Amino acid sequence: MIILIQCTDRIGLVAAISGVLANEGLNITSLREHVDQAENRFFLRLETALHPDVDKLSAALKQVLPADALLTISTGAKKQIVVMVTKDYHCLADILIKNFFNTLDAAVLAVIGNHPDLKNICSRFEIPFHLVSHEQKSKQEFEQQVLEVLSPFTADYIILAKFMRILSPAFISRFPKKIINIHHSFLPAFIGANPYRQAFERGVKLIGATAHFVTDDLDQGPIITQSTIPVSHSLTAGDMITAGKEIETSVLAKAMSLVFNERVFVHKNKTIVFDF
Amino acid sequence: MIILIQCTDRIGLVAAISGVLANEGLNITSLREHVDQAENRFFLRLETALHPDVDKLSAALKQVLPADALLTISTGAKKQIVVMVTKDYHCLADILIKNFFNTLDAAVLAVIGNHPDLKNICSRFEIPFHLVSHEQKSKQEFEQQVLEVLSPFTADYIILAKFMRILSPAFISRFPKKIINIHHSFLPAFIGANPYRQAFERGVKLIGATAHFVTDDLDQGPIITQSTIPVSHSLTAGDMITAGKEIETSVLAKAMSLVFNERVFVHKNKTIVFDF
Amino acid sequence: MIILIQCTDRIGLVAAISGVLANEGLNITSLREHVDQAENRFFLRLETALHPDVDKLSAALKQVLPADALLTISTGAKKQIVVMVTKDYHCLADILIKNFFNTLDAAVLAVIGNHPDLKNICSRFEIPFHLVSHEQKSKQEFEQQVLEVLSPFTADYIILAKFMRILSPAFISRFPKKIINIHHSFLPAFIGANPYRQAFERGVKLIGATAHFVTDDLDQGPIITQSTIPVSHSLTAGDMITAGKEIETSVLAKAMSLVFNERVFVHKNKTIVFDF
Amino acid sequence: MIILIQCTDRIGLVAAISGVLANEGLNITSLREHVDQAENRFFLRLETALHPDVDKLSAALKQVLPADALLTISTGAKKQIVVMVTKDYHCLADILIKNFFNTLDAAVLAVIGNHPDLKNICSRFEIPFHLVSHEQKSKQEFEQQVLEVLSPFTADYIILAKFMRILSPAFISRFPKKIINIHHSFLPAFIGANPYRQAFERGVKLIGATAHFVTDDLDQGPIITQSTIPVSHSLTAGDMITAGKEIETSVLAKAMSLVFNERVFVHKNKTIVFDF
Repeated sequence: MIILIQCTDRIGLVAAISGVLANEGLNITSLREHVDQAENRFFLRLETALHPDVDKLSAALKQVLPADALLTISTGAKKQIVVMVTKDYHCLADILIKNFFNTLDAAVLAVIGNHPDLKNICSRFEIPFHLVSHEQKSKQEFEQQVLEVLSPFTADYIILAKFMRILSPAFISRFPKKIINIHHSFLPAFIGANPYRQAFERGVKLIGATAHFVTDDLDQGPIITQSTIPVSHSLTAGDMITAGKEIETSVLAKAMSLVFNERVFVHKNKTIVFDF
Repeated sequence: MIILIQCTDRIGLVAAISGVLANEGLNITSLREHVDQAENRFFLRLETALHPDVDKLSAALKQVLPADALLTISTGAKKQIVVMVTKDYHCLADILIKNFFNTLDAAVLAVIGNHPDLKNICSRFEIPFHLVSHEQKSKQEFEQQVLEVLSPFTADYIILAKFMRILSPAFISRFPKKIINIHHSFLPAFIGANPYRQAFERGVKLIGATAHFVTDDLDQGPIITQSTIPVSHSLTAGDMITAGKEIETSVLAKAMSLVFNERVFVHKNKTIVFDF
Repeated sequence: MIILIQCTDRIGLVAAISGVLANEGLNITSLREHVDQAENRFFLRLETALHPDVDKLSAALKQVLPADALLTISTGAKKQIVVMVTKDYHCLADILIKNFFNTLDAAVLAVIGNHPDLKNICSRFEIPFHLVSHEQKSKQEFEQQVLEVLSPFTADYIILAKFMRILSPAFISRFPKKIINIHHSFLPAFIGANPYRQAFERGVKLIGATAHFVTDDLDQGPIITQSTIPVSHSLTAGDMITAGKEIETSVLAKAMSLVFNERVFVHKNKTIVFDF
Repeated sequence: MIILIQCTDRIGLVAAISGVLANEGLNITSLREHVDQAENRFFLRLETALHPDVDKLSAALKQVLPADALLTISTGAKKQIVVMVTKDYHCLADILIKNFFNTLDAAVLAVIGNHPDLKNICSRFEIPFHLVSHEQKSKQEFEQQVLEVLSPFTADYIILAKFMRILSPAFISRFPKKIINIHHSFLPAFIGANPYRQAFERGVKLIGATAHFVTDDLDQGPIITQSTIPVSHSLTAGDMITAGKEIETSVLAKAMSLVFNERVFVHKNKTIVFDF
């Protein structure tokens, strides 16, 4: 069982929380706490054995927490995700493979694509693929159709696995802290389109990828994780795109692992990540 | 103020410890706890404001801890270190520079060398250099002289910064968990002498370095940190030694930073490292 | 077109080789040459436009090269590979996905497994899976059956993608420099079985993987590439295996990319790798 | 002896160059050639034994090269450098230490500082320190004084080792491809001042450093090398500056090693780096 608590900081919070657990006979096998002192904000993650009555435990914890506390008790149920894609296969394929072999820490409910290219790979794994073309539609119409496809699912997270359309603030605001994007550069370098072309023209010696929660400010949401790999003059802009696929896949995989294992807090425009 | 606690695990330890701090009006700004369940061993590190009466706090904590608890309360006093060297300058120079510019998180009391080569650099920074030659002496005699040099100092740690003699179990047992060595390979590969020659002959594509506490089993003490860098066919065995200097310097620096900032526990032959 | 030449070194080889190309009107767009001076051995890789008559070019080059020269002219035909597996899916799945999306730089002819576990994933990509169980058979019988399965294929390389049986020298000697293995550790650390268990017990702070050509000396063949990732006390031996899957997959992928793009020479027990 | 050639590409260049060397009885022990096909630009670096008459060899090479060829023949003489600093010690100290122990591949002629802070460390290594304050002076006056200090030296390179003033185009144009700067971020992210503050506020998970040649466009010169290190929420903006010191030091050291070992070409706003 994993417990996450985020709230205004005050003296005695760790004692109060761990006191509740001790009273319930629960041993804490791992605990991480961090206070952002500038923000006076308290973040805590702990692992303990499964409690037989989560509602009772939750009520007991809320009694000792400030009114603004965000409390999450995760009993190990798999997260449910919907994946949105365009044409690039690499992130989606990694997700489908891990989903198939049961190592994703989540279950893929469906895939939504604005192009039909990735329908085939989904069908090979018996994952429903929904084509929602953006062509000859306003953004509003397009997003309305996406919402209709999403509506029967109770997705914990929407994963933008190389989904190359910009979503509207109206759409994003329906899924706060629930949309994860893989951005094809080391943000904040090369914001926007064609980052590999930009990187090639600038002659950089590293390229990177950034996984972040999506907010209504393009490419500016809270960063979950990012990584870089070396490149050299011998790579064309096309080679950089190929090299980028590897790093994009691994960065998105890492971000999902962190989020699905309840290791990421969001506060304002930053994350607190209690990594492995 | 940093508090470290290591003891047999039992339910309620976090509550008891944090309860003591809350009673004293201390806010915990960072806490990490880990239980090694196979060993039933509890490890906790926390940061809090300075308490005016450390002895009182220590007594209060001991009252709630198991009898076997190891408790350390660090109030920010700089660690005191003695550095032992042979001929290689790179780790020592990094230490002397950081010591001079006050960024080492420790104070260098003295340097002991079994060769005179590094006396000059020490004198440029007004650090006492003690030559204790090993030549024409038994190991016992040599170590006796080292002990005599060490005796006036109350060193928290002895740093083997490319000290190329093997110390006897008798010597090591006087400084349990207090001697840190930089080993010139990614242990457990290439144990023993000439690891770069071994690496060259094996045609490896990475070389590494390992910082570890010294126990009486050669190169087998608890590992603090280690790192690797890529190498290629174009490097000679000599080039590998040069490349190795960089990684040795940075790995030892990292290990010292972890230890001096109270981020490392030792239990049996392993470390628990609560990294930054 | 990529040309690889390995031979005894002598003065004038680059001039002679590039002279032949200039005579044929071919521009060299990339060239790397390395002489192993201790071995008096010459290695050269160059890229140039496609020559219309490869046999003629080959004959012209041989005229200027020492008698012992190994000459390879690669005109871009995809390598043909057979993959051997046991139960672990991760390396195989990466290969199947890239094969499906045509980014492997090779074509998968077939998969041979000594367990049936991975038949399902192969069939989803319409790749023939051949079960050759090792049970109740001598190694000789088992390998004889593998050879029979292999015989209709003209495989350029056999990829051991987590194939967990040790092949006999008799088998290996039929495929010199043609079998690539992914070893689940940073060789030469943790040779042999259960390296993650060994790594866990030693308390290492990095784990790694090594891709190498297979020779008849277990885990001692020429290393193609290797990499490491950090691990911590918070990982169980089982977590280390999971973390290891990622690094194994990426190291084997990198090794295949290097070999399939004609960037690896083997000489005695080492490789010369002209990386990107 | 290292030979570097950069010129317009044409068929037969490698043959012509290596032909000259073969005629002179020189064996090429390492060669790397790259053609930027979009730019029709040829870059070649080779290593060979020392020729007794460099002028003769140079003349012979020029005869076979295009008129626009840039030819450098390096016979192993140490580069001469002047270092410019402000207050930060870390890059300078690394240079002084390596200079002292003769592992810099260059000789430090002098240090120029616009603050007196680093005079002490220079004097400990008997390296002349020239204070040129920028206070109460126009940029033109300040740079005029720097030029006066530089004038007696025949510096191959000027190293900006955390020199925190922006140099004018007029100054920079006197030293084309001769000024190397370490920029305290992973360019092109966080151009300009206070990059660690920017990085902290953005909540990035990596910070980096970039070494580049200085051109008159701020932070936009050709990148030599760059690297990143992970950071987390637990670092303050101040901690990030400390962490940044390590990566800045190692990136500048790497860039100097590449340049001093004749491994870097500059063409327009990019570098071609033939790394080790």
